[in-house]
Amino acid sequence: MAASDTSFYSIDAATGERFGDPLRVDGPAEVAAACAAAELAFDPFRAIGNEGRARLLDGIAAELMAIGDELIETAMRESGLPRVRLEGERGRTVGQLRMFAEVVRRGDWERVRIDPALPDRQPLPRPELRLRMIPLGPVAVFGASNFPLAFSTAGGDTASALAAGCPVVVKAHPAHSRTALLAARAIGRAVSAEGLPKGVFSQVQGPAIALGEALVRDPRIMAVGFTGSRSGGLALLRIAQSRSVPIPLYAEMSSINPVVLLPGALRTRALAIGEGFAQSLTMGAGQFCTNPGLVLALAGDDLDVFCNAAAAQIRQNAPQVMLTGGIHSAYRSGTAALRGQDGVTLTAAGPDESAKANGQLFRTTALTFLANPALAHEVFGPAALVVACRDEDELCAVLRNLEGQLTGTIQMEGSDADIASRLLPVLERKVGRLLFNGWPTGVEVGEAMVHGGPFPATSDSRTTSVGSLAIERFLRPVCYQNAPSYLHGNRPS
Amino acid sequence: MAASDTSFYSIDAATGERFGDPLRVDGPAEVAAACAAAELAFDPFRAIGNEGRARLLDGIAAELMAIGDELIETAMRESGLPRVRLEGERGRTVGQLRMFAEVVRRGDWERVRIDPALPDRQPLPRPELRLRMIPLGPVAVFGASNFPLAFSTAGGDTASALAAGCPVVVKAHPAHSRTALLAARAIGRAVSAEGLPKGVFSQVQGPAIALGEALVRDPRIMAVGFTGSRSGGLALLRIAQSRSVPIPLYAEMSSINPVVLLPGALRTRALAIGEGFAQSLTMGAGQFCTNPGLVLALAGDDLDVFCNAAAAQIRQNAPQVMLTGGIHSAYRSGTAALRGQDGVTLTAAGPDESAKANGQLFRTTALTFLANPALAHEVFGPAALVVACRDEDELCAVLRNLEGQLTGTIQMEGSDADIASRLLPVLERKVGRLLFNGWPTGVEVGEAMVHGGPFPATSDSRTTSVGSLAIERFLRPVCYQNAPSYLHGNRPS
Repeated sequence: MAASDTSFYSIDAATGERFGDPLRVDGPAEVAAACAAAELAFDPFRAIGNEGRARLLDGIAAELMAIGDELIETAMRESGLPRVRLEGERGRTVGQLRMFAEVVRRGDWERVRIDPALPDRQPLPRPELRLRMIPLGPVAVFGASNFPLAFSTAGGDTASALAAGCPVVVKAHPAHSRTALLAARAIGRAVSAEGLPKGVFSQVQGPAIALGEALVRDPRIMAVGFTGSRSGGLALLRIAQSRSVPIPLYAEMSSINPVVLLPGALRTRALAIGEGFAQSLTMGAGQFCTNPGLVLALAGDDLDVFCNAAAAQIRQNAPQVMLTGGIHSAYRSGTAALRGQDGVTLTAAGPDESAKANGQLFRTTALTFLANPALAHEVFGPAALVVACRDEDELCAVLRNLEGQLTGTIQMEGSDADIASRLLPVLERKVGRLLFNGWPTGVEVGEAMVHGGPFPATSDSRTTSVGSLAIERFLRPVCYQNAPSYLHGNRPS
Repeated sequence: MAASDTSFYSIDAATGERFGDPLRVDGPAEVAAACAAAELAFDPFRAIGNEGRARLLDGIAAELMAIGDELIETAMRESGLPRVRLEGERGRTVGQLRMFAEVVRRGDWERVRIDPALPDRQPLPRPELRLRMIPLGPVAVFGASNFPLAFSTAGGDTASALAAGCPVVVKAHPAHSRTALLAARAIGRAVSAEGLPKGVFSQVQGPAIALGEALVRDPRIMAVGFTGSRSGGLALLRIAQSRSVPIPLYAEMSSINPVVLLPGALRTRALAIGEGFAQSLTMGAGQFCTNPGLVLALAGDDLDVFCNAAAAQIRQNAPQVMLTGGIHSAYRSGTAALRGQDGVTLTAAGPDESAKANGQLFRTTALTFLANPALAHEVFGPAALVVACRDEDELCAVLRNLEGQLTGTIQMEGSDADIASRLLPVLERKVGRLLFNGWPTGVEVGEAMVHGGPFPATSDSRTTSVGSLAIERFLRPVCYQNAPSYLHGNRPS
């Protein structure tokens, strides 16, 4: 974006040029107004119950689809992502909303538990206890740069917070403000069609970091969903923790997603694994949180076959536009830094073209990797580092030394079962999702997905930001003791 | 306690005199050794599975009972609490351990979710996803001053962490170190009887605050359970949050537990409510987290009847020994401060006796209460403040203005249903447990209990420290994608 104090513009990701009308820059007054409206909307929004909230979520999905091609074309221009990807992402966004509508209709999100009264128990009678989950209150959601639809205005955080009964205030990502506006208007139409207060959903926008900070500071905000950089997530986390009433902040921040190639798998299919890996690495210019940035294997001929196959694929891949100029610069400097590290070799690079990102594959040894923590930092984009280990102990030491990750992948055959069972408890402690014989890019939205993981993959390993369990981020338990039956609307049943 | 650098002593709560042999003061080396042992024990402890962990919990319960009267008498001397209370507390402690053994045997704590593979789905097949909860890692538990058995060495935090599969390091409360030692040895015998590594359970002790701080800082500790003061909880929370890997800290800190007396209830049974209230207030010298420290009602004759009944009861009650000299001093200065506040009247006080605590009942108006935040601070002990409101709006304003609480109580009749339904959404946002026509002291241990609540009642409103849901504090979800069936021990089923 390009900004003044009162207006800013969308930028065409491919050309770097501004386009369209100027966009309003929101400030503290707009944040306060949105939060006040969200607080006012909380009780009426809770009061409409499960069916009303499910209808709202379905309504948002329908309104998003009704925008038609304008949504896709706007997102393409702002993000540089291709049509097929954005159409897929829209499908996922709409699917998430409908999944949460089903979750709300099912009602099991309330996790009702009832301990019946035991009036004759000795030495004391037991009262009746009923537990249910209730929504936390207004939630702030930060749009993510790399998913203009599925992790932004009408994305997973918004869908799960609304499903929980929490009004939402979105801070739109400035890299796709126009897409965010279209989505916000669609949500507004659905809110209005249900006769709900406007404050059920608001959005603020602008290029300044202070805007999001003001949102997290607002005392009416009771939880925050964020997907973005480690520095951005940690800055917001500090604000959330230092409020006079601290609140949970769910930040999905950074991950290099280790892939472990076990000996049996390499022996039987090194070539295919190399090709599959390179595809996962370079897809969408590598701009996925679950991009496989680290490969671990025992050194040897089979690993060389893997590297050669991956290298050949990477050299063939055309360079791709990245989401923003800033992300592209960070990729260039991140890969340049890797090239300058002692003991790290550039194995392959795709065709270079200014303003686009090419795939890059690096290689080093376990000893070099263990000695240099900088090698474990995420380089956001299509770059990966292969770490050749001399033996299983070295491989295990590298795993133990890793920070928390969103995913860990194991390529294995039956003959690898013993080594896998020794590595699994190590890897389990590091990740939110363990994949076998697949690739971590492509995050399925379902009941059993975990898109989370130990710090610093996320700020809170106890949750997921994808899948139906994500609703629990915005709930807390309340127990009702001996609630009279005539208060039926106010007690769990 | 009375301390040197290397040893300290137990103090008889009733006499203030030291008794027994000197106790060892632990320091950073003992903390590090305990945490290292816990980390080493983590994988083997996970590996024994549900039945083994359930046996351990049952074994601890049996070993605690096997100590016999020595446990009760030691706790009586260190805490000043009467035999009947401590026998009841031991029953609760043993009951908690057995409840968690059942929870572990049932296995539903793992919350397994399975999305079956859809190999023919278009445009892409769906992989098989299996989700389960896994333990976080070693857990630090802080013994509480006011429950030498049920919230200390072998208390609820330890039971739920062990149930989750987390090794535990307890920091014993210095006010009952000798009781803590007896309990720790009982746990050690049960750990040993199961053939488990010693590091499954350790305890460190000593009077210095730095001991607990070192424990929370240790990088091997992955979560913390704490019950105690607001200042202590907040200090540990800051440490937990500022670690290079932040961890969840579950601190149960302070609460004044508002009781709302609705007009119909006061009209029909003001006398009985006043008596019941005074009993709840003064029981155990008011040293319960859920002690009812605030009463809200509409001003009028019925409220006066309630106050007179409560006052009569309080004046009759004999003064009681408090847990420690420090707690008693804080009670004396807290009640003295209340007496000095403008617009606050002392309605009744029990017989005064130096070194013991007497019940004290104060009264003020809603306007005075709203204007003076100090009136909403917890005074730990048998003191309460009655706030007389002119109308429902004032009562509601007082509720809205409260900080987070463990409990909220409503005394009501059917004729109060309308006003209750207006107040309930306000009260629900403030508390972890809502009680009707009862008293908040006495926390039932069951499936549906919530002993938690919004900040600053606790540091994390999304959980409970009592009841079977408490196990979830020490778990996080992991998703297993396409895990081969021959890895059956390593995939959820």
